[in-house]
Amino acid sequence: MINAKLANTPYPLPIPIPGLQFFQSPEPFPLENGSVLSELTLGFHTFGTLNAERNNVIWVCHALTANSDVSDWWAGLFGPGNVFDPEKYYIVCANMIGSCYGSTGPRSINPATRKAYGTDFPLVSMRDLARSQDLLRQHLGIESIALCIGCSCGGHQVLELAYLIPAKIKKIALLVCAARESAWAIAIHESQRMAIEADPTWAHDEDNSGQAGLRAARAIGLLSYRTIEAYRDTQSDTDERSDWFRAASYMNYQGEKLVRRFYSQCYWHLTKTLDTHHMGRGRGGISAALAQLTMPAFVFSIQKDLLIPPFEQELLAKYLPTAEFFSCDSAFGHDGFLIETEVLREKLGAFLDSST
Amino acid sequence: MINAKLANTPYPLPIPIPGLQFFQSPEPFPLENGSVLSELTLGFHTFGTLNAERNNVIWVCHALTANSDVSDWWAGLFGPGNVFDPEKYYIVCANMIGSCYGSTGPRSINPATRKAYGTDFPLVSMRDLARSQDLLRQHLGIESIALCIGCSCGGHQVLELAYLIPAKIKKIALLVCAARESAWAIAIHESQRMAIEADPTWAHDEDNSGQAGLRAARAIGLLSYRTIEAYRDTQSDTDERSDWFRAASYMNYQGEKLVRRFYSQCYWHLTKTLDTHHMGRGRGGISAALAQLTMPAFVFSIQKDLLIPPFEQELLAKYLPTAEFFSCDSAFGHDGFLIETEVLREKLGAFLDSST
Repeated sequence: MINAKLANTPYPLPIPIPGLQFFQSPEPFPLENGSVLSELTLGFHTFGTLNAERNNVIWVCHALTANSDVSDWWAGLFGPGNVFDPEKYYIVCANMIGSCYGSTGPRSINPATRKAYGTDFPLVSMRDLARSQDLLRQHLGIESIALCIGCSCGGHQVLELAYLIPAKIKKIALLVCAARESAWAIAIHESQRMAIEADPTWAHDEDNSGQAGLRAARAIGLLSYRTIEAYRDTQSDTDERSDWFRAASYMNYQGEKLVRRFYSQCYWHLTKTLDTHHMGRGRGGISAALAQLTMPAFVFSIQKDLLIPPFEQELLAKYLPTAEFFSCDSAFGHDGFLIETEVLREKLGAFLDSST
Repeated sequence: MINAKLANTPYPLPIPIPGLQFFQSPEPFPLENGSVLSELTLGFHTFGTLNAERNNVIWVCHALTANSDVSDWWAGLFGPGNVFDPEKYYIVCANMIGSCYGSTGPRSINPATRKAYGTDFPLVSMRDLARSQDLLRQHLGIESIALCIGCSCGGHQVLELAYLIPAKIKKIALLVCAARESAWAIAIHESQRMAIEADPTWAHDEDNSGQAGLRAARAIGLLSYRTIEAYRDTQSDTDERSDWFRAASYMNYQGEKLVRRFYSQCYWHLTKTLDTHHMGRGRGGISAALAQLTMPAFVFSIQKDLLIPPFEQELLAKYLPTAEFFSCDSAFGHDGFLIETEVLREKLGAFLDSST
């Protein structure tokens, strides 16, 4: 499955990713906005093997800055003995176009210029992501997906993939996501892009361009991933200092952590992709589009989610014909999908086993 | 009252401010952190006149990027015929140290270097602000303040001023504020400073330094001043576009509006001042400090406030000995203190007239 030509990634990965495989599309990849990627590579992971009935596929769509190695970032759900056990399932996850973990993105070489795309990388839509995932599915010879699961913007990819190939997806699990990118989320993303653009190095043709801007963008994102209460309970100073507060250090620490593993140009472009999400566009509206997704759907909500709050998942559950809604009271906010794995294990295990 | 020497401000104001007066401290001004401002100027406004009984003073403390002209930014409460009528009251408001509307700040000339302080401006604490306001009070010959009122970080100044001169303040009104700057607010401010610092021009010795960073910082702030629901209801696109979203334009528009009237170095330093707020520091804790403020207090909360949420005002109401608590269900979030003037007029009018 590993394409020998691409055993080395098309650009330097910011971090090593064990087990990363590559798929190269045999054709240029047209984008929804009219541009064409003359070459398309997808980084991806697989775990386990396709069974004889070819019906044990778990297809995962990752969130903004994650990669395709679900055994790493979602170890609470994926792994031997867990709810998504590679002994039982054939698990696939592909890196998003525009990211920097193996798939074509702003730091990839543009064949037309022989330099990285950089800020000229075209606008990739959520639907483009779904079509790219479907190319990988065909390449892997998968005709049936038992469960397609995604969290945050991964859930948005699940929705689009389910709309694209509804007959091939038996169940979907949608965690802390929405039918459309909200004005609120777009406003957050724009403030992040403004922070990146405030750093003039972001437009330079270097992998480490725009790091100061990316640190700030990450800090902004972090606010939306957590809660007021979580900051109060974990980042309050217990002494009586007047400067060098723990909460401020924490923001810098988290910003620094991201620049060591991500590229600012990729972050900027991925947020643009997120903003394109709209299940109803050109389909007669959101309710009409969701009505097409008749497979059983598990919809998971976190009550204190500041980024994609519960009313968004309630709307999904309202319009999806066969939805099962679960609301979790997590102190962690949006990021709870990574942390509340105990309840997710239980609920997803039951959903996976149910015959509805 | 106008100091002739200072009839022109010590530095170019970013915008003209009609009616601005200046007070220059006769002494150097020592700061809580050990630094000394060798010169201290405060820009301020007064409206109305001190009555014969010298008991009709309304003292206002403004929020982050406001100025001392309450008749402009709080016209819903201040003006002829309104609850704070200059025909009846002598209204005073002073610009915060560190701001750029008449008071000494980062764009003021440092007498030691004959250049603007810039990024070297010292850390000014919330208690320093209160002491500066008290100097102006003495200068104006005011021995009794009928009501000291402030919103957001203006409320923090009210708390410190009431602690400093409790016998001289008869009533306090605390709107959407807290006993201490929370880890959450500090994290927001740090992300704003990170955005400003990502713009390398912010350290230049120019009034227009750091404008790209300030645009982003303002965008971040705006998220905390509004609500998810307000963005949904006012900034959602009604067409099916995939780029150039209304919410994104709005963030840029608001960022641009601020850079036309504010300096990034002042914004950066003011957020540092906000972070120092802690009523309990060196006073045996918050409850002990608030117990000293025995004057009647009106505490105003906005239920959807994302920046300084209701539990902060509930804590104030719990520990202030004579507090009256009012919670408002405003769709506007934190910024509601500027908008919900109808309910504020009613509640503050009653509080002002009450004899408790």
